[in-house]
Amino acid sequence: MTRTPEIGLIGLGTMGANLALNIAEAGHVIAVFNRTSDRTRRFVEGAGPLADRIVPAETLNAFVDGLARPRRILLMVPAGAPVDEQIAALRPLLDTGDILIDGGNSDWQDSAARAESLQRDGLGYLGLGVSGGAEGARHGPSMMAGGAPEAYAAVGPILDDIAARFDATPCVAWLGHGGAGHFVKAVHNGIEYADMQMIAEVYGLMRDGQRRPDAEIAQVFGRWNAGPLESYLIEITAEVAGTTDPETGKPILSLIRDRAGQKGTGRWTVMDAQRRAAPLPAVEAAVTARVLSGEDAWRSAGARLFPQPKRAIALPDDNFERALLAGKILAYSQGFALLARAARDEGWDMSLAMVAQIWRAGCIIRSGLLDEMADALAQDGPDSLLAFAPGFARRLQDGVPALRRVVAEATLAGVPVPALSAALGHFDQLRQARGTANLIQGLRDRFGAHGFERLDRPGETGLHGPWGDA
Amino acid sequence: MTRTPEIGLIGLGTMGANLALNIAEAGHVIAVFNRTSDRTRRFVEGAGPLADRIVPAETLNAFVDGLARPRRILLMVPAGAPVDEQIAALRPLLDTGDILIDGGNSDWQDSAARAESLQRDGLGYLGLGVSGGAEGARHGPSMMAGGAPEAYAAVGPILDDIAARFDATPCVAWLGHGGAGHFVKAVHNGIEYADMQMIAEVYGLMRDGQRRPDAEIAQVFGRWNAGPLESYLIEITAEVAGTTDPETGKPILSLIRDRAGQKGTGRWTVMDAQRRAAPLPAVEAAVTARVLSGEDAWRSAGARLFPQPKRAIALPDDNFERALLAGKILAYSQGFALLARAARDEGWDMSLAMVAQIWRAGCIIRSGLLDEMADALAQDGPDSLLAFAPGFARRLQDGVPALRRVVAEATLAGVPVPALSAALGHFDQLRQARGTANLIQGLRDRFGAHGFERLDRPGETGLHGPWGDA
Repeated sequence: MTRTPEIGLIGLGTMGANLALNIAEAGHVIAVFNRTSDRTRRFVEGAGPLADRIVPAETLNAFVDGLARPRRILLMVPAGAPVDEQIAALRPLLDTGDILIDGGNSDWQDSAARAESLQRDGLGYLGLGVSGGAEGARHGPSMMAGGAPEAYAAVGPILDDIAARFDATPCVAWLGHGGAGHFVKAVHNGIEYADMQMIAEVYGLMRDGQRRPDAEIAQVFGRWNAGPLESYLIEITAEVAGTTDPETGKPILSLIRDRAGQKGTGRWTVMDAQRRAAPLPAVEAAVTARVLSGEDAWRSAGARLFPQPKRAIALPDDNFERALLAGKILAYSQGFALLARAARDEGWDMSLAMVAQIWRAGCIIRSGLLDEMADALAQDGPDSLLAFAPGFARRLQDGVPALRRVVAEATLAGVPVPALSAALGHFDQLRQARGTANLIQGLRDRFGAHGFERLDRPGETGLHGPWGDA
Repeated sequence: MTRTPEIGLIGLGTMGANLALNIAEAGHVIAVFNRTSDRTRRFVEGAGPLADRIVPAETLNAFVDGLARPRRILLMVPAGAPVDEQIAALRPLLDTGDILIDGGNSDWQDSAARAESLQRDGLGYLGLGVSGGAEGARHGPSMMAGGAPEAYAAVGPILDDIAARFDATPCVAWLGHGGAGHFVKAVHNGIEYADMQMIAEVYGLMRDGQRRPDAEIAQVFGRWNAGPLESYLIEITAEVAGTTDPETGKPILSLIRDRAGQKGTGRWTVMDAQRRAAPLPAVEAAVTARVLSGEDAWRSAGARLFPQPKRAIALPDDNFERALLAGKILAYSQGFALLARAARDEGWDMSLAMVAQIWRAGCIIRSGLLDEMADALAQDGPDSLLAFAPGFARRLQDGVPALRRVVAEATLAGVPVPALSAALGHFDQLRQARGTANLIQGLRDRFGAHGFERLDRPGETGLHGPWGDA
């Protein structure tokens, strides 16, 4: 413990503690502080040989005083009021040029406001989205940074050292001013919701539409993980579906209550998408599915009133595989379109290709496909859709017919596939040169004199004559 | 012009002018004021014999001075800043007990804030949602009031006189404090979006999936309007689809650009539903469809890349009819569930049956079905779903199989039916006693140690053992 800590970390919950160990293991000396110093002591005791590079502080003053200048302080406290309280406590102790980094799941608009407020005091700020769960934090997360570029220049080298790597490239980047990092993290989480929901839907098709046991479903997902669906989520789906409960000897999935939790980032994302008119139907469906999973009273009443249609789903596994791949591409395409829209709205200098690159490893949605997406996004303009990029259009030409069959069969059998269906519905609307909004406009003009555009001449107009055939 | 005006109206746009004529025709003396007095003059000149009961004012002072006390002033100015500006201009001219009524499409949260602020000055406030378009305003709108009950007691008799009537009952009611009226109006508009979108989807199935001419489709809708779908929107769909453009002799729908406008209330409604975790998938799909109708560049690129599957939709008209009825019931059920949730959240003393009653006539979504809904809602508790009420459950048992066939066929043929599909997907999730969120929870525990509940014993837990089969 001979060197001055290069960085400090506040908040030794699971994520904070693991990030601190990761930083120490990367060779950096780190100061740590926790509201209850008991937890700090236990943390250092459990750090093994890494404890040599960890400097515990009993008080916030001692923590701040001990740091190298300009100070770099990583906040790992719960999102919301605790972040503001921590910033307020730190503020009088800091000097011009010191940098705060919020590594929690903060609302991006809060981050934007904090960045602005701290900048007025000459303090640097980074809003840092961290993905990868506990394991990722410990051994290499994917990190999405927003805030002042100078602050990123001062902190980036440490982040590079602790980030996950795809080939040799660290999965961390600066993505824009203010709340850009936390925004991208929220969209990541939204896509994660859609990804998981689509997987759960295909699981449901095999479990309820084909009456297959969990162990067999696990094998199917295991095989898919060797193909184009290869990804962390498919890998752990195989693992989870294949797990036997050690206490009862039953498949663990048969014992887990079908009520999903959520922490709000998925919901923020769909509300933001609505506000910007940048639709995200697959994520909306996934958020809604989690909400409905908690409506137990309605669900049991519904099951009594409306029995399941007696109809098995006779589709081969490779049809599910191609459908899932198509659905996934469509969901990601929607997510990247939202990022493009938000970057334009907020003036963020964000490279979508860079976003895809830093999602290739470390985070929950990491997958081989993201590498292809990074390439496609690097070649495309910001106004194009990922789903229409050459490589992905080909994949969709192949996969969408399978997705149609899955959604149609599931619909007839009464097995819910809301996210797959929403992804396909969005796609079908975007490949209609002539839609049916002409009727909507006709109705709006009929009841509200809202006017409509004509195809045969320019300008807003309406009907110059009576409605109905006189 | 011998009597003192009982009420005043500010803002002689289409809706304001028509409401003023309606009030005068009901026998009330009304003062009118418009920012530009030119419009006031023209309005009175065009009022014919009703001009006897209309008192135009050249200045705001004269307008206010002339009104009977306590004053009742109906604001018909555009939502947003104009309402606040008008209130600010009026405030110094008013006396304790005077009442302002905002009859525009204000955000319900703005209305709640205005009600509170005006109450502090001893002024009454009503946020009044008015539906029915120009015709409704002139001859009988449906009106949804929120605000102070005493204010409603003072204004209600005039509103009763001008409201639409279902049998002898006026379609107007007080629905709760603050912004309750404008909230219900926003949900009405959201349901209207879903209703129109589902109609447009069925129109698309006949036009694109069956290659039928508009005139034939008009006849089908005309027939449906004599059955259980009977409603204003079905009636005018028949009318609009059957209209020939007088200039070109072509069907008018073939000439209207397929790009739908929107004024924001649908979007507010779905964002509010997301915030409350009271899902509204059919309305979300309808709002999204309007947004996507404006994405011309993507749509033409998509049409080039992904040609329509060559597949006709071979379903009889009565299958469409039953599907549309089922979809409509499901969309309304979602809307009423949001109202129930919001009423609980906001402490509104709102009768859902009353809401259905005042929607039976005057408003855009008026229909025979709403009378049945009013009866069902009067018998049900606030926690039950309209879709599960006995009469509607029977209708769904009959209609949902038809809806399944329509969604499945449309999916295979690539004809978008996002709202019908979202309505059905929501329903299927609510009739699953055992869902697939067990897998979601398993994955969340696997990557984030979020824990899960077990079915075989109470309490939050997680896996006590390794994942995967060791």
